Amino acid sequence: MKSDSAFLSAARVATVTLFAFLSSCLQVRAESDPLPSWNEGAAKTAIIDFVKTTTDPASPKFVSPEARIATFDQDGTTWVEQPMYTQVMYCLDRVPALAEKKPELKSIEPFKTVLSGDREAIAKLPKEDLLKILAATLTGMTVDDFNAEVKTWIETAKHPRFKRLYTDLTYQPMLEVMRLFRDNGYKTYFVTGGGQDFVRVYAERVYGVPLEQVVGSVGATEFSHDKDGKPILIKVPKLLLNDDNAGKPEGIHFVIGRRPVAAFGNSIGDKEMLEYTQAGGGARLMLLVHHDDAEREYAYGPDSKVGTFSDALMDEAKSNGWIVVSMKNDWKRIFAFNP
Amino acid sequence: MKSDSAFLSAARVATVTLFAFLSSCLQVRAESDPLPSWNEGAAKTAIIDFVKTTTDPASPKFVSPEARIATFDQDGTTWVEQPMYTQVMYCLDRVPALAEKKPELKSIEPFKTVLSGDREAIAKLPKEDLLKILAATLTGMTVDDFNAEVKTWIETAKHPRFKRLYTDLTYQPMLEVMRLFRDNGYKTYFVTGGGQDFVRVYAERVYGVPLEQVVGSVGATEFSHDKDGKPILIKVPKLLLNDDNAGKPEGIHFVIGRRPVAAFGNSIGDKEMLEYTQAGGGARLMLLVHHDDAEREYAYGPDSKVGTFSDALMDEAKSNGWIVVSMKNDWKRIFAFNP
Repeated sequence: MKSDSAFLSAARVATVTLFAFLSSCLQVRAESDPLPSWNEGAAKTAIIDFVKTTTDPASPKFVSPEARIATFDQDGTTWVEQPMYTQVMYCLDRVPALAEKKPELKSIEPFKTVLSGDREAIAKLPKEDLLKILAATLTGMTVDDFNAEVKTWIETAKHPRFKRLYTDLTYQPMLEVMRLFRDNGYKTYFVTGGGQDFVRVYAERVYGVPLEQVVGSVGATEFSHDKDGKPILIKVPKLLLNDDNAGKPEGIHFVIGRRPVAAFGNSIGDKEMLEYTQAGGGARLMLLVHHDDAEREYAYGPDSKVGTFSDALMDEAKSNGWIVVSMKNDWKRIFAFNP
Repeated sequence: MKSDSAFLSAARVATVTLFAFLSSCLQVRAESDPLPSWNEGAAKTAIIDFVKTTTDPASPKFVSPEARIATFDQDGTTWVEQPMYTQVMYCLDRVPALAEKKPELKSIEPFKTVLSGDREAIAKLPKEDLLKILAATLTGMTVDDFNAEVKTWIETAKHPRFKRLYTDLTYQPMLEVMRLFRDNGYKTYFVTGGGQDFVRVYAERVYGVPLEQVVGSVGATEFSHDKDGKPILIKVPKLLLNDDNAGKPEGIHFVIGRRPVAAFGNSIGDKEMLEYTQAGGGARLMLLVHHDDAEREYAYGPDSKVGTFSDALMDEAKSNGWIVVSMKNDWKRIFAFNP
C-alpha cells in the first residue's frame, strides 16, 4: 500500500538522518584533540597511540575492558608538590587548632617550632619530628571528623607561592590524560604516597577519581562505639600501608588486585610501580613527569627533598622505554589558569 | 508542505512505536520475579521493596548511584561453610604437595596429622596448628603461582558431603539477590573473613563480583625481583587485615571508603559490619542468613565452630530490625541443582 511504503520510506529517512547526525557527532569528537594542553611531540603521540591501540578490538595490543587499569601518582605527577607535599601543609596548618585543644603541646617540640611560624625552622624539622606532627594531626579522631576538617581546609587554604587553592594547582595536561583514559573505558586510580583518607576527600571532585579508586598510604582505623552507642571508626597511629616505592605495587595488589597497563609517576617513589606495570608484558605505558620548568612551576632534581628524579631513574627510563615528559617542552600550559 | 507533514507524522509514529516497544520490554522485566528461588514472605518482600525505593528518584529513600554499595559475607552467607571453611579445605589439601617439596614436614606436627588423613584428628587440631598450616600453604610463593594453584583446586576439588565442586554449593537465592542489586546500579562487594587473594580467583566467574570488589583478610606481599630480574610479588606470613568482626568495617573503610547501604551476613563475625551499615542512617538493609535446614544444607547454632549464630545475635537482629532469613522456610531451593 502506498501509505505504508511512504511511512517506511519516511521512517528510513528519519533513521538515516539520525545515524548520520550521531556519526557526525562521534567524528567531531574523534577528530578533536583529546590533549589540547600538550605540545605536539613524541610524548603526546605515544599517549594517544597507546589508548587507540589498546582499545581497538582489531589490534593485537587490545586490552579487555576489565583489565583497563591506569594508575597515577599524585604529588608531582598530577599536582604541585613544592615547597612541601600538600598534606604536610595541611598537618602544619592543623597544629594551632590542636594546641588549642591540648595546650601542653605549646611548649613541646616540634609543635613549638610549628606554632612559632618560623618557615625556615619548620622546613628544617627532621623526619622524626615531621612524623610526630603527622601522627598528631591525622589520627585520634573519627573518619567523619577527619573528612570534614580536610574538606574545610582544601576549600580555603592557599599555596604560598601561587596564592591559589591547592586544587587549582593540578596539571591541566594530566587532567586531560586522565579523562582520555576514562573516555576509553579505563579505570583511573590514584596510587599515592599521600594519605588515602586525605586524597579521597577531593579526588572525585577535582580529578574525577571516585574515592574507592584512591590507593594511598593507610593508617589503621579502629571500630568502636561513641558515648551514645553509635558505631564509629577512629583513626589510630598505626601504619598499615606505606604506599611508596615497593609499597606501590603492594598497595595496588591489596586494593585493586590487577596489574595496571599504564602507570604515571614523577619520582623514585614511583620506580617500582612502573617496573611492576611493565613486567605484565604486552601493551604497557610507563610515564614520568620531569620537573624542569622553574618559571611556570619548579625545576628540581636529585637533591630535592621531595619528588627526587635521579640520574639513575632517568637511565632506567631510557633503557626501559618509559616516556619522560618535559614540563617545559611538552606542556603548552601547566595550570588551567595559565594563558 | 504535504510531504513534509507526512514525513513528520510517519517519523512520529516510528518514534512512538519504538518507545512503546522499549517500555513493553522494560515492563516485562519489571513484572518478572527477580527472586524466583525465594518463597513469598517478609524477607523477600523487604529485599525487593528496599531495592525499589532506594533506586526510585521520587522516593525520599533514594540513594544516589555512586553510594549504592552492598556488601556480602561469603562463608555461610553465599556458599556452604561446613564442615570447614572452603579455604581451610584448600590449605589441608595443599599439605601433601608441600611435603613433597619439604620432606622434613612429614615428621612434624601438625603436618604429620594432616598427612595421616585421619579426619577426626584433623578436625580436632587446635587453632594455633591451623594457623601454622595456613601460613605454610598460603605464603612463600608469588601471587601468580598462588592464583594458579587455587584455580586448579577450585575447578576440581569436591565437597565431602555433597560430592560436588565447592563452586556448585553457592546459594541460588543469594546469587539472585546479588544480581538484583547489580541490575539496579548497586556495586556488590564481598567482605569476607576468607583470604582476599583466594576469593578473587573465582569471585567474578562464580558470583559476578569483579576482583577489585573483594575485601577479605589480607596477608602482606613483598615486592621483589626473581632471578631473571623480573618484578614479582611474594606472599609473606604477615597479616595486614583480619577481615572479621571489627575488621569488617575497618576493611570496608580501607578498600571501599564508603559505608554500605546494604549488608548481608550469617554470623557473629558479621555483627559489626551490620551495625556500621545501619549507623549510616536513612534507608539501610541488614540481613542475616540463619542455617536451620539440616536436610538440604546444615543446621547450626551457638555451639558450632564456624558461623556461630548466637542467641545474643538473634536478639540484636530483632531489636535492630535486621532481616533474619530462615533457609528452611524462606528458600524454595538452596542450590541450583536442587529440584
